[in-house]
Amino acid sequence: IESVDYITSHRTTVLPGLVNITALLPGGDGFEQATRAAICGGFTMLGISAHGADAFATTSDQSVSKVKSAGRGHAHTDYVVEIAATEANPTAAAALSADAPILYVSFDRSHPVHVDKYSAVSEHFKAWPQNSAVITNASGNDLATMLLLASLFSRQIHVTDVRTPEDLDLIDLSRARGLCATCDVSVYALFADRLPAIEGLQSNVQPLWSRLSAIDCFTVGVLPAQAAKAAGVKDVNPATLGYQLVLPLLYTAVSEGRLTSADVVERFCNAPRRIFGLPEQPDTYVEIHRDRLVRIPPKSDDAKWFPDILAKPAHCAVHRVVMRGKTLLLDGMFYDQGLAPVGRDLCHVLRTMSSGPSGKQFAQPPAMAAGALSVKT
Amino acid sequence: IESVDYITSHRTTVLPGLVNITALLPGGDGFEQATRAAICGGFTMLGISAHGADAFATTSDQSVSKVKSAGRGHAHTDYVVEIAATEANPTAAAALSADAPILYVSFDRSHPVHVDKYSAVSEHFKAWPQNSAVITNASGNDLATMLLLASLFSRQIHVTDVRTPEDLDLIDLSRARGLCATCDVSVYALFADRLPAIEGLQSNVQPLWSRLSAIDCFTVGVLPAQAAKAAGVKDVNPATLGYQLVLPLLYTAVSEGRLTSADVVERFCNAPRRIFGLPEQPDTYVEIHRDRLVRIPPKSDDAKWFPDILAKPAHCAVHRVVMRGKTLLLDGMFYDQGLAPVGRDLCHVLRTMSSGPSGKQFAQPPAMAAGALSVKT
Ligand SMILES: [Zn+2]
Ligand SMILES: [Zn+2]
Ligand SMILES: [Zn+2]
Ligand SMILES: [Zn+2]
Ligand SMILES: [Zn+2]
Ligand SMILES: [Zn+2]
Ligand SMILES: [Zn+2]
Ligand SMILES: [Zn+2]
Repeated sequence: IESVDYITSHRTTVLPGLVNITALLPGGDGFEQATRAAICGGFTMLGISAHGADAFATTSDQSVSKVKSAGRGHAHTDYVVEIAATEANPTAAAALSADAPILYVSFDRSHPVHVDKYSAVSEHFKAWPQNSAVITNASGNDLATMLLLASLFSRQIHVTDVRTPEDLDLIDLSRARGLCATCDVSVYALFADRLPAIEGLQSNVQPLWSRLSAIDCFTVGVLPAQAAKAAGVKDVNPATLGYQLVLPLLYTAVSEGRLTSADVVERFCNAPRRIFGLPEQPDTYVEIHRDRLVRIPPKSDDAKWFPDILAKPAHCAVHRVVMRGKTLLLDGMFYDQGLAPVGRDLCHVLRTMSSGPSGKQFAQPPAMAAGALSVKT
Repeated sequence: IESVDYITSHRTTVLPGLVNITALLPGGDGFEQATRAAICGGFTMLGISAHGADAFATTSDQSVSKVKSAGRGHAHTDYVVEIAATEANPTAAAALSADAPILYVSFDRSHPVHVDKYSAVSEHFKAWPQNSAVITNASGNDLATMLLLASLFSRQIHVTDVRTPEDLDLIDLSRARGLCATCDVSVYALFADRLPAIEGLQSNVQPLWSRLSAIDCFTVGVLPAQAAKAAGVKDVNPATLGYQLVLPLLYTAVSEGRLTSADVVERFCNAPRRIFGLPEQPDTYVEIHRDRLVRIPPKSDDAKWFPDILAKPAHCAVHRVVMRGKTLLLDGMFYDQGLAPVGRDLCHVLRTMSSGPSGKQFAQPPAMAAGALSVKT
């Protein structure tokens, strides 16, 4: 982010690198561009969703290999590749679980790769390793059914991109009864009152904010790509959108007293690592200026799909992003130092899921890791 | 049923008395009329649903007492009174469970008494005795959620008036995973291709027939009342409708080879008694002429809401209905013998629910009780 520094002296806050667990699958050779956008937003680890903005999805050995080849030597962030559930691939997906250790069950009927029949989900639950993660974007009827199946099969499940208070309440009720369910909400669902293009979301903004304690993780989600498509924005890579507005939006809410910095760290750093068994990233951190007012450059890709972000200055600038001891971003400048990107495929270093079917870990209030936040002057 | 006997010599089949587990709650002093219609159809036991065709429902001590008073000395069938779940009455309903031992959780938003919030169902599951039955008419989203809650609370649940193959499949899948769920389908959903007034049902007729093995019970259901209302039929008591067409319709299907007599006995006699712990009725039975062709009288109430039933003769006439040794119906004539009706409130003789949360009994194929059917010449 190019930004104008209104305040000459400011405090720096250090955050662990952020994790976006359902990053849009970059099309073609878009890996480098997408992970660079993530780094510029303070994200150092991505779950590469099984689905892209186009018709592509990782459903097979071949398509997973293709994505892994695209990532090798071209990713600035660490990442883990997810695999899409289809009605045809329960056995194949399970066989790939070492390489693509998160199963993504999509009910998004606007994408050609999705699941319609619950019996297919049953087959996946029978085949997929008990200790490997399952993510679903199910909502409404599909959500109730996915939670039912998770309960019947004693499976842990993570619900991504929750958009309604009803869905959140159902997840919370299930969790209170011992189901091991977690969820995330897109940052953009929390600021949808400023997104005119997406229907039905605006009235849910306040109900979602009022249920913050039920939200385990934040994500970037597919809303930026959906909003860009709805607004007819051309010439942008959908997989790059949204990252660089996350911390300005959230820390503006912090400055307004609607959120704490600990809420942000829990939901974007600690919780996703804990839930998905993602490893720590040594010598990896993000320095931000929380109290610095920034304006988003009018020509940035994000300004095209989220024009309202230009209306007033936001709090918080990403000052520096360090990946494994190397500074990749400093005051708006990205430094790749002429070297190949250093991001790693994490599939072989994932810890197995930390929780059994009792879900007790998730029923407890999130605990802050000691020293996750430090403040320098 | 007044009927023309086309065949002078015919075999008589003896069935146990039929059970309609969700009989419409009769309004005012309609108990005698509704139970007489039931007897004329071969039904000797009714679950009196918590809901009537009007706004009335049994939700409290007062309303349960009112229904019980209306039934005492005015019921020709045995019966059990059900209680409606509301958001306000989890504690009150549980306290009434000895007198109204079946909890009815309705999601029918066209009736003023229904449940909207899942948290209310939670409260009922916490309060309602573990061994007492729960019936719900939930469908779609509500059904998935009810099954989820039943799973989380380890409760047995009976789903009434299932109308879509999707809902049946979801119940069957849950059952295959050990959930203790049973269901019924209205006979009229199985013949809805002949009911022009009810939208959306016709395309489900064949899918429902093809899933007969997943259907535990048949019921009369609320379809006759709904069809009569949709067709603007006046001057009928909704609680009397449908009973007398049940056996003619089902045995016409038997004569066409789509069903067996054992299927009928299992789903209308044995299964409801087994599932709800209903007692045997001594010296109580129904004699039918399976091979007799009958025509429904054009002026009967049932001909008003189901005009297509007049188009061709149906197989099967109810020849005789015997309740506790007394013949109440013989060849179309109802005999009350100048005595008060002998039907009993069964609330204190219900066996506790026969099954634990494993639901194994229900996952097994229905077994025919030995001697349930006998044939005389
Ligand atoms: Zn490259
Ligand atoms: Zn589809
Ligand atoms: Zn700076
Ligand atoms: Zn600075
Ligand atoms: Zn009377
Ligand atoms: Zn309502
Ligand atoms: Zn006869
Ligand atoms: Zn005869």
